[in-house]
Amino acid sequence: MQSIKFQKGKLFYLDQSKLPAQELWRSCLTLDSGYQAIKKLRVRGAPLIGVFAAYCICIHLKGLSLQKDTFFRQFNSACNYLRGCRPTAVNLAWALDRLEMVAAESRHLSLSRIKRVIVAEAKLIHRQDRLTCKKIAEFGSKLIKKNENILTHCNTGFLATAGCGTALGIIYEANSEGKNLTVYVDETRPLLQGSRLTAWELSKKRLKHKLISDNSAAFLMQKKKIDSVFVGADRITAFGNTANKIGTYNLAVLARQHKLPFYVAAPTSTFDLSLAKKEDIAIEERPDLEVKKVLNKVLVAPEKTTCLNYAFDITPPSFISGFITDQGIIYPPYQKNIKAFLGSRK
Amino acid sequence: MQSIKFQKGKLFYLDQSKLPAQELWRSCLTLDSGYQAIKKLRVRGAPLIGVFAAYCICIHLKGLSLQKDTFFRQFNSACNYLRGCRPTAVNLAWALDRLEMVAAESRHLSLSRIKRVIVAEAKLIHRQDRLTCKKIAEFGSKLIKKNENILTHCNTGFLATAGCGTALGIIYEANSEGKNLTVYVDETRPLLQGSRLTAWELSKKRLKHKLISDNSAAFLMQKKKIDSVFVGADRITAFGNTANKIGTYNLAVLARQHKLPFYVAAPTSTFDLSLAKKEDIAIEERPDLEVKKVLNKVLVAPEKTTCLNYAFDITPPSFISGFITDQGIIYPPYQKNIKAFLGSRK
Repeated sequence: MQSIKFQKGKLFYLDQSKLPAQELWRSCLTLDSGYQAIKKLRVRGAPLIGVFAAYCICIHLKGLSLQKDTFFRQFNSACNYLRGCRPTAVNLAWALDRLEMVAAESRHLSLSRIKRVIVAEAKLIHRQDRLTCKKIAEFGSKLIKKNENILTHCNTGFLATAGCGTALGIIYEANSEGKNLTVYVDETRPLLQGSRLTAWELSKKRLKHKLISDNSAAFLMQKKKIDSVFVGADRITAFGNTANKIGTYNLAVLARQHKLPFYVAAPTSTFDLSLAKKEDIAIEERPDLEVKKVLNKVLVAPEKTTCLNYAFDITPPSFISGFITDQGIIYPPYQKNIKAFLGSRK
Repeated sequence: MQSIKFQKGKLFYLDQSKLPAQELWRSCLTLDSGYQAIKKLRVRGAPLIGVFAAYCICIHLKGLSLQKDTFFRQFNSACNYLRGCRPTAVNLAWALDRLEMVAAESRHLSLSRIKRVIVAEAKLIHRQDRLTCKKIAEFGSKLIKKNENILTHCNTGFLATAGCGTALGIIYEANSEGKNLTVYVDETRPLLQGSRLTAWELSKKRLKHKLISDNSAAFLMQKKKIDSVFVGADRITAFGNTANKIGTYNLAVLARQHKLPFYVAAPTSTFDLSLAKKEDIAIEERPDLEVKKVLNKVLVAPEKTTCLNYAFDITPPSFISGFITDQGIIYPPYQKNIKAFLGSRK
């Protein structure tokens, strides 16, 4: 199962905005159409947009100048353009930074060699993400007991990554070990990544699950129907402040109130050590219509009503039981442990 | 502004399931169509369905037997039928109980007199609800400061009652006193009473408001954009356990975490002193499709996915800052104060 393909220099993606009604593969022919695919959430999920953006640059290379200085100006400007597409998830900038770095390091080579280096790096980012998911899944599954009822938010599975996923990948791994899990799926308004994508993945994999409205989680916890919460992340600061899909902080508060473990699963590349406080993270605000007109189809509020549509929220570190990364699990105190953990492994 | 009318023995209602797209008034000609109107949430809001159900009985009277014993059997059976339509809100049963009581007390009169007594009682319930709303609004508005940002859930305005509303009525009252409020409106999945109804009311009344997805409230509280939370109630036990629209308990937990006042506004008739613990309240489960197919129009999840769709949740008394009733405000400790307060006033 995969959601993007790069074959013979051509880039294809599964249009996630059409799921679950339609499994539509599109080809991405230009930088602009790649930008739009990310902007419109046809390709989404923090790790995936990193990989996809890298490939968008690859398909853009052949149109660039044959004069090296101009090539680099155009190449860097294309990276900047994509970087500005969505501000919150760090993976987008991180992947483009990697391309820029290997390109700069190869500046003394011929243009055709430089292009090959860039494409090779994009493919490496892709392969590494698959491996990263596998490792997160293995570390995380040890935290899950038999017959556990796990709540998850948004979509963090194979649609959101180049591999099996982050939080959802852990659930797949634990279930494949025979742990007989039940997954409670937050529908995740406004764009319904839970109903449309996570429930779709779980249906495909025939894994027991129940879909709920986001506002039901508290009551289910009160009724002791939930044992643990696993979510992904879009950006994590040096102190452990975690940006993730709107509604994540809500679950974190609920989990603490009901004394349930609350785990964040993400690759080490999601940590942004240049930031510390929660105010340091830029939170994307998206159009009113995402809330007012469900999936751009049914208008559910008066025309004049305005909305406040933050795409992400920030969970402070004190609410997080552990960060499950591809290198192992980071436990509190995070202010000390995140830097120490990442420092020792980089 | 009103949402039902009883004129010359005829019953009309504004079909709330069509809002905000269409302001459609329907006439209710039979007991069955009244039952369906309540069941399908064309008429909803705990206080309103009490008043409406009473009128449904009124329009049903003329078809009943002219033999007194049979009349009473048919009348009581009609009351029972409506009572079973929705289990959680107490007002439905409470209003029908009142009709049955006055009918029983008038049993010695002629059938035509008995019918008049029943209709008079229904009209009295209607008038009283309007007055009750006004009193709740006056008591509650004293709790609101100038320029306050208030979060509310579901719809508790004139659509939900026979008057100005409960929680929303308080907001109207405070705003009419020049307090310059901003209302944050939870969209209230799955049936979107916040977007469809509360935002519609607030638009009509030109009151400043912003619509949010239910999962945004936590982040807005963290960002200090919310000063207080006001909600309604469907049934309140002697100990203060409060059933209300799913998502209410979620907000209560969030309010406590962020040290915000959390008020429940409801008529004294919403208290059910025959119940104490939260497990005593029957919680209605509604069809999967309400979650999976938004407003019965857009399928947002795979066909095979099942849902858990509780229509209400229960907020324990320790989360509630006060109950704003038509007779005054009840403060903790509720286990003592609710019975004392209601006992002294009944």
